[in-house]
Amino acid sequence: MPLRVKKLGILAGRGALPRQLAETCVANGQPVFIVDLEGAASDWAGNFPHLRVSLGQVGKLLAVLKQEGCDSIAMAGGLSRPGLTSVRFDWKGVTFLPRVAQLFRKGDDGLLSGIAGLFEEEGFKIYGPDAFLTSAIAESGTLTGETPDAKARSEIALALNILNALAPFDVGQGVVVADGHCLAVEAAEGTAAMLARVAALRKSPGGVLVKIPKAGQDRRLDLPAIGPETIHAAHKAGLAGIALAAGGVFILDRAETLTLAREKSIFIDAINVSVNA
Amino acid sequence: MPLRVKKLGILAGRGALPRQLAETCVANGQPVFIVDLEGAASDWAGNFPHLRVSLGQVGKLLAVLKQEGCDSIAMAGGLSRPGLTSVRFDWKGVTFLPRVAQLFRKGDDGLLSGIAGLFEEEGFKIYGPDAFLTSAIAESGTLTGETPDAKARSEIALALNILNALAPFDVGQGVVVADGHCLAVEAAEGTAAMLARVAALRKSPGGVLVKIPKAGQDRRLDLPAIGPETIHAAHKAGLAGIALAAGGVFILDRAETLTLAREKSIFIDAINVSVNA
Repeated sequence: MPLRVKKLGILAGRGALPRQLAETCVANGQPVFIVDLEGAASDWAGNFPHLRVSLGQVGKLLAVLKQEGCDSIAMAGGLSRPGLTSVRFDWKGVTFLPRVAQLFRKGDDGLLSGIAGLFEEEGFKIYGPDAFLTSAIAESGTLTGETPDAKARSEIALALNILNALAPFDVGQGVVVADGHCLAVEAAEGTAAMLARVAALRKSPGGVLVKIPKAGQDRRLDLPAIGPETIHAAHKAGLAGIALAAGGVFILDRAETLTLAREKSIFIDAINVSVNA
Repeated sequence: MPLRVKKLGILAGRGALPRQLAETCVANGQPVFIVDLEGAASDWAGNFPHLRVSLGQVGKLLAVLKQEGCDSIAMAGGLSRPGLTSVRFDWKGVTFLPRVAQLFRKGDDGLLSGIAGLFEEEGFKIYGPDAFLTSAIAESGTLTGETPDAKARSEIALALNILNALAPFDVGQGVVVADGHCLAVEAAEGTAAMLARVAALRKSPGGVLVKIPKAGQDRRLDLPAIGPETIHAAHKAGLAGIALAAGGVFILDRAETLTLAREKSIFIDAINVSVNA
């Protein structure tokens, strides 16, 4: 059962996750208020009560969330790390500046959990999108296609070893392995950009994309996701399938994503992984 | 002093390294024969005695190298891993096929050292380009610009930790760290493609590119290199500098590369690193 709160402020970045979170909440009768960060959600935020703010407008943001009656906040969707010098801060933002500047020196995890901490101090509860989208998290097992064969299983195992090795460094959540070796490691560019370069590199089909949450990641923040665009990109990259951490990766537009994967003969396998921190 | 051999067969892939190796050898009176692999060296191979072969023409390749009197071979320059099914093998190639198919399942290191092993069995000596280009390997110390400051040193240290963590997996030779976190990890796409995506991601300048040879890498094969193009790409990516493993990375077109780095205010620092295998 999805959680219920008084009103959920959705800090919305790029991608389909924040839109889907907002739509699901409203369909379930859960009131929401959308904060369109830097215009990343401008395509759809107009369908909901919303406010567009720049990252430095901390004072305005806190005031409006309180005035709207939001008791809870969820962050959803990717956000490019801005250059600190390009952010224009309001007065409240300036009072936060020393701490924000410190956060900017950390990886994405540090930045996000630091921002979450600032909101908690202001009295908001922080939830992950999965608290309201429980049906969208990948469960364990083969979701589409054949169970991965021995070759795919060994490629998945290599990818998991690489992701484990990178875990202490707050690097990406995705790796592509094909023909027994690593073709691409995702860092700040995101999965779509990684798959696009794999498509440009490939000369023969096969291989897997493996996505897991970062080790030690605050699961309320920035869980990885796949969706229809991921399937299209994986197909263009010639991949045989996708392996996900069961319970740790969103499947956006789930019915469409699984149907598309079946059409493109791409397996989706949700695996039980424990990641070393 | 550069090594002297009877005649050096240069298996030439992409990039400036094989051309520079050929030119340096000829300037030193060292006879060479260029093998233009899949047309990767077609721009310049015509200036030297040469033969263009596809990767499957193993019989033709061995016959010509022997007929030309080559006693030694050096491999230089990048080569996209072809799809095994797209390679057309000649008769000798077919007799190698079971072993080649096995090599194709390994990473780049496995592939290259396996190919080197095949040539050794046929009586050729295998050398690294550095045996003939001794002046081009980065020595220890700051080559251009200021000695890296504390921020750059900590970014270099983080990049080295990430490269060390990836060492067991035959993944890339380069990492970009900026503002204290990892922006990009190089795998099969190469340094140029990695820097191009960093340029697209960046909103504020700073950060370092760190390049080291892969752990356990046969140093005769596929040592990393920087050159003028690397400096241009690092400049576009807004980087403050480049750190290299001393004695483990080529500086192509050395005078031009260092002059350009000075012009663009990019430091080049060659550091003593030991990489865990």
